[in-house]
Amino acid sequence: MKPLIHDLLANPLSGEQIEARSMATIDREAPPHNFSPEQWPIVRRMVHTTADFSLLEQVRFSPDAIDAARSALRGGAPIYADSNMIRAGLSMARLQRVCPDYRAESILCHVADADVANQARQTSLPRSLFAVRKAADKLQGGIAVFGNAPVALLELNRLIVETGLRPALIIGMPVGFVHVVESKQELMDLDVPYITLEGRRGGSPLAVSVVHALCELAMP
Amino acid sequence: MKPLIHDLLANPLSGEQIEARSMATIDREAPPHNFSPEQWPIVRRMVHTTADFSLLEQVRFSPDAIDAARSALRGGAPIYADSNMIRAGLSMARLQRVCPDYRAESILCHVADADVANQARQTSLPRSLFAVRKAADKLQGGIAVFGNAPVALLELNRLIVETGLRPALIIGMPVGFVHVVESKQELMDLDVPYITLEGRRGGSPLAVSVVHALCELAMP
Repeated sequence: MKPLIHDLLANPLSGEQIEARSMATIDREAPPHNFSPEQWPIVRRMVHTTADFSLLEQVRFSPDAIDAARSALRGGAPIYADSNMIRAGLSMARLQRVCPDYRAESILCHVADADVANQARQTSLPRSLFAVRKAADKLQGGIAVFGNAPVALLELNRLIVETGLRPALIIGMPVGFVHVVESKQELMDLDVPYITLEGRRGGSPLAVSVVHALCELAMP
Repeated sequence: MKPLIHDLLANPLSGEQIEARSMATIDREAPPHNFSPEQWPIVRRMVHTTADFSLLEQVRFSPDAIDAARSALRGGAPIYADSNMIRAGLSMARLQRVCPDYRAESILCHVADADVANQARQTSLPRSLFAVRKAADKLQGGIAVFGNAPVALLELNRLIVETGLRPALIIGMPVGFVHVVESKQELMDLDVPYITLEGRRGGSPLAVSVVHALCELAMP
């Protein structure tokens, strides 16, 4: 048996070429949809990340989301991630092509902080709640990138309603079976720029893919 | 409008309690399947990570996969991840509950190494290929955790066929539109312990969820 990779070694394709071929496949196979020319590259990258066309039915943009994202990224707005997987997945090179001020400290995630773990233990509530509360200062004008815990999104929704907090953009894509559907429904009822995925599905790679697609739109 | 999180604050649920409730929901809603009692907790955690029951039709285990995983994890086998998101997502606390020898250096990922990037540039091939090649020593008896690039899995398949490399277990869950389906089909034709997902879908959180579920099975 001849290993399949020999075909690739004989006809080399770079990572960039493979990505371009993938995007062309998605354009070809995608069912009809009503996304705008600016929205489609974002949705397409979400499909690229999951190989799942059924997401098309569930992606929702607030009308101001893309303009808000462009300004925030160009201004180097801080990014708060609800998981360390998101922090690891975000490409500093892509962020810096939009705004050279971006650096490692621009991307925050407090879910593994010791003080956050202590508060969670003392209250029998999830760590993600206290992690968001700790990040409130940075979320004022910042970008929330959520792909994990719905409680993070619920707490952010509360801060928006009760304290007047105004993030520049919320990428709200928690995943799962408890509190998830409601957390996104509540987000869509708020007057803030958001990109979300209705229903139970979501995940860190989806949230990261949205940021990376927005970086391409925002590049000078 | 009263924010929804007040319900949770009034009736606190910890992260562990929310997880238990999610798992019960999955047990209740899952369609009929033929997974064994040892396989089901692994598949269930994959559903928990994606909120997607359609995965049930595509998860495949080699007959020896769970026994092989248990021995490898208990022996502290090194883990090679094909993305830094996987490295960030793996819980050191869970690994150490199975084998106290696990430490940060036990989890490797070479895809962002400078020498790997240089080789990729010189050959116009993806970095993930050279990253796996660099990890071959650790993959002898190690655990491969792949949730990103199919080329990583294709190169590992080649090393197995052509050099006699024998990983303890391959979690083969790359995602996407180019080389993905074939890379998993080739894996399933090899005589090595594997857990994989037929078709185009996959992803880093799925690969991580399999490791975490295996840790629970392997705990002493």
